[in-house]
Amino acid sequence: MNADARRSLARLVRAARVASLGTLRWGAPNVSMVAYMPAHDFATFWLRLSRLAWHTHDLAADARVSLAICETDDGREDPQTLARVTLRGEAVEIAAADPDTEALKRTWLERFPASAVTFELADFAFWRVVPRDARFVAGLGRTYNLSAAELSRAADESP
Amino acid sequence: MNADARRSLARLVRAARVASLGTLRWGAPNVSMVAYMPAHDFATFWLRLSRLAWHTHDLAADARVSLAICETDDGREDPQTLARVTLRGEAVEIAAADPDTEALKRTWLERFPASAVTFELADFAFWRVVPRDARFVAGLGRTYNLSAAELSRAADESP
Repeated sequence: MNADARRSLARLVRAARVASLGTLRWGAPNVSMVAYMPAHDFATFWLRLSRLAWHTHDLAADARVSLAICETDDGREDPQTLARVTLRGEAVEIAAADPDTEALKRTWLERFPASAVTFELADFAFWRVVPRDARFVAGLGRTYNLSAAELSRAADESP
Repeated sequence: MNADARRSLARLVRAARVASLGTLRWGAPNVSMVAYMPAHDFATFWLRLSRLAWHTHDLAADARVSLAICETDDGREDPQTLARVTLRGEAVEIAAADPDTEALKRTWLERFPASAVTFELADFAFWRVVPRDARFVAGLGRTYNLSAAELSRAADESP
């Protein structure tokens, strides 16, 4: 993947705020919308999930996830040219007592001010998705399979 | 679900053109972007997939899918208020010789003119996703679990 493609990928990951989370629900696929926050190096993607949500039940049974981020559909003639990336990995819940939580809360609230209420409710927690690999479709016929290290290299292109 | 919620759901399904398709890839979740076309009664959602694509390999092994349609992120303060719906069901490939294919091709090309090339390539086919049920999140805290019949009722609200 060349520098242009890496820049496209970094722009995509940084421009979007919501992603499609794929989980396993009694062995079948389940997709739901989640807000996300990427770490600067794209080595972690943070989610804030409610224990009442279906996807959180799913994750309690099987930590494997797929997280897809898609460029906003701007009504162009061919939607297949929209850039999108799918990360695959595992999701791990972060304990409220974790020392990282305070800093995480600050950056999360900067990104999602309306989520302040979730810090007053006991059923919400941060989750860490660590990508094992990624599949980036830069546009029609331009598909790249990336290791986690290659995904992190893309993060360097557009700090 | 009242008439207002049914109208919101119908608007969402009719306004979007791309969805997130959840499939099983060697038993793990896989999410990818697909263009879709709903039938008038929302009893079928049409996809046009390439046999070369990962999701198509996944479907050959397990027909179960989750198809999530999300309102376009307009940059509002709280992305959790975006409307979204997840359909669950099975995907079935339509044979090229199927008598429905000609009519389907016409409506598909009206919706996706740039996909004309896919009708010259042997590796593309129509797939039918028949929703068994749906989960509609109209906004924060307004979630509806719908049968296929209730999903079809929403289609009546906004022809």
